Amino acid sequence: MHMIQKEMVLNPHARGFHLVTDEILAFVPEIKAWTAGMLQVFIKHTSASLTINENADPTVRKDFESHFNEFVPEDAPYYQHTYEGSDDMPAHIKSSLLGSSVSIPISNGRPNLGTWQGIYLCEHRNYGGGRQLVVTAFGQ
Amino acid sequence: MHMIQKEMVLNPHARGFHLVTDEILAFVPEIKAWTAGMLQVFIKHTSASLTINENADPTVRKDFESHFNEFVPEDAPYYQHTYEGSDDMPAHIKSSLLGSSVSIPISNGRPNLGTWQGIYLCEHRNYGGGRQLVVTAFGQ
Amino acid sequence: MHMIQKEMVLNPHARGFHLVTDEILAFVPEIKAWTAGMLQVFIKHTSASLTINENADPTVRKDFESHFNEFVPEDAPYYQHTYEGSDDMPAHIKSSLLGSSVSIPISNGRPNLGTWQGIYLCEHRNYGGGRQLVVTAFGQ
Repeated sequence: MHMIQKEMVLNPHARGFHLVTDEILAFVPEIKAWTAGMLQVFIKHTSASLTINENADPTVRKDFESHFNEFVPEDAPYYQHTYEGSDDMPAHIKSSLLGSSVSIPISNGRPNLGTWQGIYLCEHRNYGGGRQLVVTAFGQ
Repeated sequence: MHMIQKEMVLNPHARGFHLVTDEILAFVPEIKAWTAGMLQVFIKHTSASLTINENADPTVRKDFESHFNEFVPEDAPYYQHTYEGSDDMPAHIKSSLLGSSVSIPISNGRPNLGTWQGIYLCEHRNYGGGRQLVVTAFGQ
Repeated sequence: MHMIQKEMVLNPHARGFHLVTDEILAFVPEIKAWTAGMLQVFIKHTSASLTINENADPTVRKDFESHFNEFVPEDAPYYQHTYEGSDDMPAHIKSSLLGSSVSIPISNGRPNLGTWQGIYLCEHRNYGGGRQLVVTAFGQ
């Protein structure tokens, strides 16, 4: 079994949901040589997250942002952690709802995603900057 | 370390939450020979998901469906992605809230689940059809 | 590739969100010898969960508890599974929203977490008791 592990910084993205599949895969060409394995992408932050969802229609990503803003509101009366700005505490909650990593099977040299699946960077801060990822893959 | 990887199609299930532990485990008898390892089940869709929860009382699964319908509503006024039906955009959001994979430790030839844990297929579409899974396991 | 797997019981925690990073890492000193790998922590329960979030300000953990109590209410009129107490069905739903495991890359003998990341035990029951974990790590 082979294992590779690398750290990368994603280009900064505006608050919202963004497709980053290609940016991540370009970083791990090694997996092309493997017939079976696993790819994990981990984000080293608590106010941005990763998920897998629809890769075609940009309105899906817009609707994600609208929904999460509605159901994880800014300035909720019950927040005590408020000194880092209105977007901070919701960003923490959204991150845990969506998760800090995605794990994708590798088959025949490629991530074995469904036709409509892509990797989303979920940027929950107004000014999040470049986000650090750890990409770990193992396979044979 | 050994690794196996297979693709399977689950039987079609109605919209709602369904126990599929046995159906999945019957597909990977190889893990019975391993003392320690990891089993990942990945769903290749963006409108159905996988989670681990209570395996005994069917009303738990009914309450999941009720809760997610309440908190990820159909026809929300802020949805722009509406042309695939009222159940489509909520299905995408539910999928990311619950996740596209589960990873379960393997111990002494069995998935090391708690007494009350089972694997749920979370079918978020009205007519989702058979859902494709990739099952990857490695161990020794 | 090396693999270790152990079961541990966390000290009982009150309902709420708790940092348990140190308690877990003390249990797997073996990873200090590895240059790259993966650590998975799995909780064998359906009314408590694990997530990764902010490790510094305790009010973040308080706000998590407040938010999840608001958005996964007790005694919702649509719950049918009510005989185990008002905190039971919400606990199941919260567990699946947050997830039953975390997977963290290991780099240079340490979990490769961001500066502000820690592992949370999310205790959703009023009296959950000691929670059982399976810790699996592999690496080289």
